[in-house]
Amino acid sequence: MITQTEHYKEASRYAPGGVHASVRVNQAIGRPVYVQKAKGGRIWDIEGTEYIDMCCAHGAGLLGNAHPAIDEALRKATEVGYANAFETMYHYELAKKLCECVPCADMIRFVSAGTEATMHLIRVCRGYTGKNKIIRIEGHFHGYHEMIYIGGQPPENAFARNRVHPYIESAGIPQIFADLIIPVPFNDIDALTKAVQENKDDTALVILEPINFNSGGIMPEPGYLEYLREITQKNGIVLFFDEIQSAFKNSVGGVQSDFGVVPDVCTIGKAIGGGFPLSAFCGKKEIMDHVKPIGNVQHSGTFNAALAPIWTGLAFVDEAVKPEFYAKLHELGARLYSGFDAIIEKYEANMLIPRYGARFNILLGRKTPAVKYEDTFCHSRETMFELIRGMMAHGIYLHDYGGGPAHHGYSVQHTPEDIDCVLSAFEHTIKSLKDQGKI
Amino acid sequence: MITQTEHYKEASRYAPGGVHASVRVNQAIGRPVYVQKAKGGRIWDIEGTEYIDMCCAHGAGLLGNAHPAIDEALRKATEVGYANAFETMYHYELAKKLCECVPCADMIRFVSAGTEATMHLIRVCRGYTGKNKIIRIEGHFHGYHEMIYIGGQPPENAFARNRVHPYIESAGIPQIFADLIIPVPFNDIDALTKAVQENKDDTALVILEPINFNSGGIMPEPGYLEYLREITQKNGIVLFFDEIQSAFKNSVGGVQSDFGVVPDVCTIGKAIGGGFPLSAFCGKKEIMDHVKPIGNVQHSGTFNAALAPIWTGLAFVDEAVKPEFYAKLHELGARLYSGFDAIIEKYEANMLIPRYGARFNILLGRKTPAVKYEDTFCHSRETMFELIRGMMAHGIYLHDYGGGPAHHGYSVQHTPEDIDCVLSAFEHTIKSLKDQGKI
Repeated sequence: MITQTEHYKEASRYAPGGVHASVRVNQAIGRPVYVQKAKGGRIWDIEGTEYIDMCCAHGAGLLGNAHPAIDEALRKATEVGYANAFETMYHYELAKKLCECVPCADMIRFVSAGTEATMHLIRVCRGYTGKNKIIRIEGHFHGYHEMIYIGGQPPENAFARNRVHPYIESAGIPQIFADLIIPVPFNDIDALTKAVQENKDDTALVILEPINFNSGGIMPEPGYLEYLREITQKNGIVLFFDEIQSAFKNSVGGVQSDFGVVPDVCTIGKAIGGGFPLSAFCGKKEIMDHVKPIGNVQHSGTFNAALAPIWTGLAFVDEAVKPEFYAKLHELGARLYSGFDAIIEKYEANMLIPRYGARFNILLGRKTPAVKYEDTFCHSRETMFELIRGMMAHGIYLHDYGGGPAHHGYSVQHTPEDIDCVLSAFEHTIKSLKDQGKI
Repeated sequence: MITQTEHYKEASRYAPGGVHASVRVNQAIGRPVYVQKAKGGRIWDIEGTEYIDMCCAHGAGLLGNAHPAIDEALRKATEVGYANAFETMYHYELAKKLCECVPCADMIRFVSAGTEATMHLIRVCRGYTGKNKIIRIEGHFHGYHEMIYIGGQPPENAFARNRVHPYIESAGIPQIFADLIIPVPFNDIDALTKAVQENKDDTALVILEPINFNSGGIMPEPGYLEYLREITQKNGIVLFFDEIQSAFKNSVGGVQSDFGVVPDVCTIGKAIGGGFPLSAFCGKKEIMDHVKPIGNVQHSGTFNAALAPIWTGLAFVDEAVKPEFYAKLHELGARLYSGFDAIIEKYEANMLIPRYGARFNILLGRKTPAVKYEDTFCHSRETMFELIRGMMAHGIYLHDYGGGPAHHGYSVQHTPEDIDCVLSAFEHTIKSLKDQGKI
């Protein structure tokens, strides 16, 4: 049997870091976890070690691994013969069902990656408004592309400069692209108002995660989303909710439904393909009508909406609309989150667990909710690594996102017993960190 | 039974143009073809009409529809439980096999869409060189994103300006992206030399389709690729072959292997996932080492290299390396292309069929090969629409790409009888067009 370390070394010969997505390297353990098998809420690594999977494909695995509805969907896609790159009646069915779920969605277009969804929808917003600038919120994440991988999550030492010279988050992105980005702090109505007033004639869109999963699970303060809705509408700016992560995590309608604030356009993704590569962008008809061949904004691609992900997407939505689906998710959530809260209180740990449906964050160094990105700088990367290693030692897989306060979650196939195992591991780990004075 | 026209109307309520990729609308018939079933080299539309599929998923369907190896791959992926967003030993296996096939590939990274592949690899080239400009070839296509959907295929009335003010190919792309693009004509060594000399200090890469499938199947002239290799090497510019379309169409090593000119980096795609959404970028180790987490260029994404496409990709490569695979493809090709040539000669049609392996173009209005993009302006869009309609009336599905001289193809599951049907339909159609004086 090859060990994880040996496999990592071998895999690194053919792929940088031995992975096909940089964040798959779990820095807490200095390598990725290579998996040989997955079932329900569990995974087994190539050495045979079993874990309860609290990564859940970064949020795409809301159905868990090897769900019977997905197996059945693939069986049906196999029967149909895939018909690659053709449209079918199943595309129509899924488009219709999702438009019925998502309040702002008159029309929809499918892609594979979330990165493609935000990229194409930004282009549509620019084509629709004839303007180019983007107001974005610090701490929010919208995919890995040159249009928006700028000014989102600057490291602490670059933070002060970010609002003047938006921080470019990867090498290889030309400086001039940053000239189109205007970063503002989350939940800051004054900063938002100023940015809109100064840039309204050049600004195509305001984009945000309505719940900021990617920087500590920061919630919008009461009235913030409503104000955003009002000021964008008044100033001819498109309001763009990036619900790639929040879609279906708590309800079929997403944050826009739960909070009753309907944007002009949104992206949805992760869970919607039942674990298969499927994302989408959608919005009001008058905006979506700018997409070719109706309008003049290009969106195309051979692999958009391949038949297998369309079938698994249908399977997912059909599961999600069953009344028992969210009943079960919320029951598991209540068990998990009340357990987390009790343990944190018992050990007087200086941390909190922001949560929204089946996804939660672990934010260290504070007991009150963060309001904006810089409120999460109290989070200790090193302690987070220790926490992840502690959980793994007890058979719970928490993914690492560079030590940050990023998101974790469970699936509908996790059991109450799984949740109890997570809580038991969490108590051991928190107790140990407390004993060491680290939390 | 719902008709194609009724379904188009209904599907258009939920997706612009009733499709999830603009080019799926076949302008020759004024709507997409909605498919209910596919098998081998055949598809059946939702009215039950049967066609021989000569679109083959725009080149991704080299295995044809419903290939037994793909069914088996999905069965195995189902057994493993998908393990979404985790790396497995199967990722390693496929990475290794592809690196063994593709000459320039020391290392590789997977993505879903070809658009993602060129976008990420351009970022890597910029990160590696610390330079930003891109020299590109007119008529070539490299995906739908702001980095390169500029200056490629200007319409005839914008062509003259293209080399001064690169033509932006979609609404919603800001002008500043065009400032980084330097378009040059294909096969023009003087223009290339001038562009390199004037821009070498700012230019990160030269990108091209080594065979220009996307504008009439234009071949590189003898010595052109060799000169490109030499001048880029001398001037510290990365040579980037976009082999998304050419990969595996004629051989396991692509154009770089067939022509013996090895670029620094390349993209591969379409066929490599066996019809499933899988593309990749690859290149020399010293360049690929710039990708995170080894280097500082970001490439990540939840859906990169999902397990099902990895399994279907392994199935594809295992088929492609069997000696009988290319033997069969080339035998079918010889039958098809000699048939095409004989019919064109018999009817003295003013057209030609450029070909490379299992993919071919239909270029109207000339009998000698085009050398550069503007040589294809003789192609008549209206006649092409008639040709496509004629073929469809005889049960052959040719996809339309806006009336252009774009590519078509066959799969390894097509039979000699299928090819004979294609030739029979072609003869009827060409005879009719000739009789009308249109060809």
